[in-house]
Amino acid sequence: MKTADFVLCIHGGAGTISRDTDPARVALYRAGLSAALQAGLDILRSGGTALDAVEAAVVCMEDNPCFNAGRGAVYNAAGQHELDSCIMDGYHLACGALAGVSTIRNPIKAARRLMETSPHILLAGHGADTWAEQAGLELVNNGYFDDEFRHQQWLKAKESGLVQRDHDDAKGTVGAVALDAAGNLAAATSTGGMTNKQYGRVGDTPLVGCGTYANNAGCAVSCTGTGEQFIRHVAAHAIHSAVVYGQQSLEKACQTMVQHTLQPGDGGLIAVDRQGNWQLAYNSAGMFRGVADSSGLFRVAIWED
Amino acid sequence: MKTADFVLCIHGGAGTISRDTDPARVALYRAGLSAALQAGLDILRSGGTALDAVEAAVVCMEDNPCFNAGRGAVYNAAGQHELDSCIMDGYHLACGALAGVSTIRNPIKAARRLMETSPHILLAGHGADTWAEQAGLELVNNGYFDDEFRHQQWLKAKESGLVQRDHDDAKGTVGAVALDAAGNLAAATSTGGMTNKQYGRVGDTPLVGCGTYANNAGCAVSCTGTGEQFIRHVAAHAIHSAVVYGQQSLEKACQTMVQHTLQPGDGGLIAVDRQGNWQLAYNSAGMFRGVADSSGLFRVAIWED
Repeated sequence: MKTADFVLCIHGGAGTISRDTDPARVALYRAGLSAALQAGLDILRSGGTALDAVEAAVVCMEDNPCFNAGRGAVYNAAGQHELDSCIMDGYHLACGALAGVSTIRNPIKAARRLMETSPHILLAGHGADTWAEQAGLELVNNGYFDDEFRHQQWLKAKESGLVQRDHDDAKGTVGAVALDAAGNLAAATSTGGMTNKQYGRVGDTPLVGCGTYANNAGCAVSCTGTGEQFIRHVAAHAIHSAVVYGQQSLEKACQTMVQHTLQPGDGGLIAVDRQGNWQLAYNSAGMFRGVADSSGLFRVAIWED
Repeated sequence: MKTADFVLCIHGGAGTISRDTDPARVALYRAGLSAALQAGLDILRSGGTALDAVEAAVVCMEDNPCFNAGRGAVYNAAGQHELDSCIMDGYHLACGALAGVSTIRNPIKAARRLMETSPHILLAGHGADTWAEQAGLELVNNGYFDDEFRHQQWLKAKESGLVQRDHDDAKGTVGAVALDAAGNLAAATSTGGMTNKQYGRVGDTPLVGCGTYANNAGCAVSCTGTGEQFIRHVAAHAIHSAVVYGQQSLEKACQTMVQHTLQPGDGGLIAVDRQGNWQLAYNSAGMFRGVADSSGLFRVAIWED
């Protein structure tokens, strides 16, 4: 039985988000989540596609320096920003992804363009930036992604020699999944990766099946957290498979992944299926998240309330 | 019921391999497949691990200029070689992968070292080469990978503006999957990618779940062919999921993927499960392949005989 005509879920990262976080910053996070949710919801409400909705929600968070994606991305070991993104269309199983790009203002827009214009799915590094330039996407200097809050995180991480997810502030990655009124699913994820990361490390975000997956036959999933854990379990596709092959409910598939397969503290994920069921599941102290649907539901949260 | 104590399957690429191929070259391919199969088999026969066996078989094909991996890798649009590799241990779900490296003599050895010494799973581009140097792996000049046969392929592709898999000679990628006497599974894949590829394109080979997957709970899989197709279907993990969640036989899971999910001509895959069942499945004109087991089976083939 269908529970809603359209649904949008978003996340802005999961981690050991302290309840002592400055209330002014908490308010910024909540406002950022609400704005992203609203941007995607407006599209779904006017009959737009799941693909347009997840892209709009992610663009909104990429442009917001609160979140570790686009502007406000964390710093790598060289004091630069390297961004990853992935988008997938559950109807066509079309997908596009970029890893380690440094000059594309909105990596999720580039992933969408790649998906729609190229036979290739994943481009990495300098070649990906070169492609984006030729494709006419908006480019910026790497310094555009700078944010003083992240810079201080990096200086601290560098001093202690740590490679960190987005500090205790969030295991930053942003993402969105949606079901549209036509019954199609889509997923999108974007990230700046881990603070002080080295050696061209690629996490789960741009890897189809790991951090991002959408397939009308099952569900759409976007993950956030310790990337390597989501990679080894091919987490997004594993949830899809549990639904399709194992005939599990979306809730059971997501909860099994988050509470049993992954380790406590690894992070979380969001998922939606064609019946309008949705999940915002995590095993960390908190997850920046939101959900809205055709029934009027509109909720953002960080911790268990 | 267990059909064999240990099993090794290998592939050296799939494609529109012409039956008119020069018999001297066909003999070289068969000799190369036999040598790789023997290298892995020797390890399994003396009680070695599946992981050591798949690595040894792949190293053997990386060192053989007949195959599109390591020495003999195809040329990218810049006339250089960019190599990808991935290895996975089905017992620990440990994995390591490299994308777009250009100075590592044996990319599969580097993937193994990364798996065993780093918290990261996937490194890409220059950072991956830098890591390998610091890890003490054997480095070579990019010219080491040169091969006159591939160079002629590239010149032809460049002239016609095509981006090709390894010509009509093979959709080159090499791989191995094994079950060892202790009951553990492993998979390894290595490739030079597509002739005349641009923009840092990454195929399915280094993507856990797409071109390579091993999990003792299900099976080990290594793929070869049109990388993007294997990515969108998360092919290796989909076969594992059909076995685990769908309780399908390995044969049914592999044949469904190759004959129904993928498109004709996309390529092929090899797989083995813990009962010693194995599959060498493809939907192209031919696939360089081999299988050996504890019962004395030892067979290499290119076409349907």
